[in-house]
Amino acid sequence: MSPRACPDPTCGIARSLDVLGERWALMIVRDAFLGRSRFSEFRASLGVSPDILTARLATLVDCGVLVRQTYRDPGERERDEYVLTDAGRELAPVLAALGRWGADHLPVDSGTRIRYLDSHTGDPVYLTFATAGGASIPASRVTLVRPSA
Amino acid sequence: MSPRACPDPTCGIARSLDVLGERWALMIVRDAFLGRSRFSEFRASLGVSPDILTARLATLVDCGVLVRQTYRDPGERERDEYVLTDAGRELAPVLAALGRWGADHLPVDSGTRIRYLDSHTGDPVYLTFATAGGASIPASRVTLVRPSA
Repeated sequence: MSPRACPDPTCGIARSLDVLGERWALMIVRDAFLGRSRFSEFRASLGVSPDILTARLATLVDCGVLVRQTYRDPGERERDEYVLTDAGRELAPVLAALGRWGADHLPVDSGTRIRYLDSHTGDPVYLTFATAGGASIPASRVTLVRPSA
Repeated sequence: MSPRACPDPTCGIARSLDVLGERWALMIVRDAFLGRSRFSEFRASLGVSPDILTARLATLVDCGVLVRQTYRDPGERERDEYVLTDAGRELAPVLAALGRWGADHLPVDSGTRIRYLDSHTGDPVYLTFATAGGASIPASRVTLVRPSA
């Protein structure tokens, strides 16, 4: 990762925000969890300008959240797609925490709440604080599902 | 809260990032959890420009994360300070998720990990995914403690 002017490099919150503390970065990560991987899919979903999307995808690849892979549709040239790494999948708690807070404190009438499922069992899971020793599901096992409207 | 161009207003993640998706906003919230409340304290801790700090504090008050109160030191004029609301205290999971991810995936030699404690019992608590019905500690009960260097 390229060096940045992190306001407090000893703090993990500060270091994460230095990479992710911009709404487009985490919206791209959300979309990647929901199965989007192509530039055109992120662009259509988010309505972000191509320049900003290009820059944010590069940062997310640079810091190990996404990995760039190539694909080729029949009759088309080779293109890049962007897939979550293991480190990227471990951002599920960040999305769950933001989603819960937004649902509770910035409610809208038409809100659709993304659900979090244990990919091993299919059971719904919830982000919570707990004391050590309780049963917990590793973040890497959690998948996001958006209810259809 | 003033209307904004939220990229996906039906999604709680998007609505939260619309307010909080900028590193200074969540760094101010972190500092507020660590006991800072005065403009001069945020400024000294974060090294952010006065203009940006003024704007971010106004947004955080506007969206109900901080409340503005007045105080007066002996012989000084009245000044504002900024204190977490109940909604602000419920951002503890967002900070815990970001801090954990940064500690795991953006490690530094000199990192100090903020600890999360149950304010009722003093026990350390951890953010985790769990199935419904498990023992959990409400976010509003969680306090942040920064180990001294």
